[in-house]
Amino acid sequence: MRLHGYFRSSASYRVRIALNLKGLGAEHLPHHLRKGEQCAPSYLAINPQGLVPTLENDTGAILTQSLAIIEWLDETHPEPPLLPKDPLRRAKVRAFAMALACDTHPVQNLKVLARLRQLGLPEEQVTGWAAWANREGLAACETLIAEEPGPLCFGADPTIADLCLVPQLANARRFGVDLAAFPRLLKAEAAAKTLKAFADAAPERQSDAE
Amino acid sequence: MRLHGYFRSSASYRVRIALNLKGLGAEHLPHHLRKGEQCAPSYLAINPQGLVPTLENDTGAILTQSLAIIEWLDETHPEPPLLPKDPLRRAKVRAFAMALACDTHPVQNLKVLARLRQLGLPEEQVTGWAAWANREGLAACETLIAEEPGPLCFGADPTIADLCLVPQLANARRFGVDLAAFPRLLKAEAAAKTLKAFADAAPERQSDAE
Repeated sequence: MRLHGYFRSSASYRVRIALNLKGLGAEHLPHHLRKGEQCAPSYLAINPQGLVPTLENDTGAILTQSLAIIEWLDETHPEPPLLPKDPLRRAKVRAFAMALACDTHPVQNLKVLARLRQLGLPEEQVTGWAAWANREGLAACETLIAEEPGPLCFGADPTIADLCLVPQLANARRFGVDLAAFPRLLKAEAAAKTLKAFADAAPERQSDAE
Repeated sequence: MRLHGYFRSSASYRVRIALNLKGLGAEHLPHHLRKGEQCAPSYLAINPQGLVPTLENDTGAILTQSLAIIEWLDETHPEPPLLPKDPLRRAKVRAFAMALACDTHPVQNLKVLARLRQLGLPEEQVTGWAAWANREGLAACETLIAEEPGPLCFGADPTIADLCLVPQLANARRFGVDLAAFPRLLKAEAAAKTLKAFADAAPERQSDAE
């Protein structure tokens, strides 16, 4: 398989963790987002949104959208599972993941921040916007798992909730968010980071890291 | 079941369509988003994001995030299915849905537009922002199903792709987006709107419609 990504893209980071947890190797093809490489016609031909990641599977099929890729990995390579078996627990895990993947990350991604700059907002307000989006999403997530014993988001095994949380916390730090208000999220992150699958997927461990 | 929603919320609209397709009745509990009712402490206690929809199922369990709710409905009430059986087709359908539910709708929702106003952007730029987000997402979606014969997004039966598309097109119109560039999406919308499940879920058919 081939994974088109970028070391700092949190959506790519999610898929890297999933591939590692499943023990699946993939060739990593970096696209430098700050240089606009995701807008090259050859890339848009496989991902019309001009976003990373994109996964090419072993038959050459193209998969886009990180959570759709991860659900596909989980359906085609069931062990270890990235979602619980019980439908209600699955819904809770997916809702946590989507609070980050739908309502948080897309509001603070490179494209949105570039648009804010185009509208004339000064850099301080652009960073403030990104920090705000992270705080809002993380605060809701802290509440969503307040009653979950852990140590990970939903129990002892990693789920797609952890796959979304760890990259989002990296973003939040980059935008200067004070994470002290989120002790339960930090507990999950600390537990996740002891796992090799998470450690190996970290941005600073990728070949295109700066 | 009880569905907390708002007539014009496109995420609520998705879940209303899903419930109708599954033939499931639900009590509809409207929360007036423009009056800020989603920020009442009693609502935040069940949905810490302060977003609609929230589904309370028959055992009183709380489900949030429209796509997580819809996946749960599909897992617990499998007929008619809202996702294809083949894993690769499922990934394509989910990716289309998420291009709208992750990268489009959250960038133009009420909360984000309110934040833009707080930053001092004039109303014209705020509407322009919402139109931009819709155009970007819909243009990608048009390409994603360009080779799909239809008439719906992915074949003859409704999937979560259609559940996301129809409400998003309603938003796009509200923000003045010219939809003529998206003939394939309009074809899918026209086919979907002939179905009673979609028609009954339309914003103007809800008890809280203005």
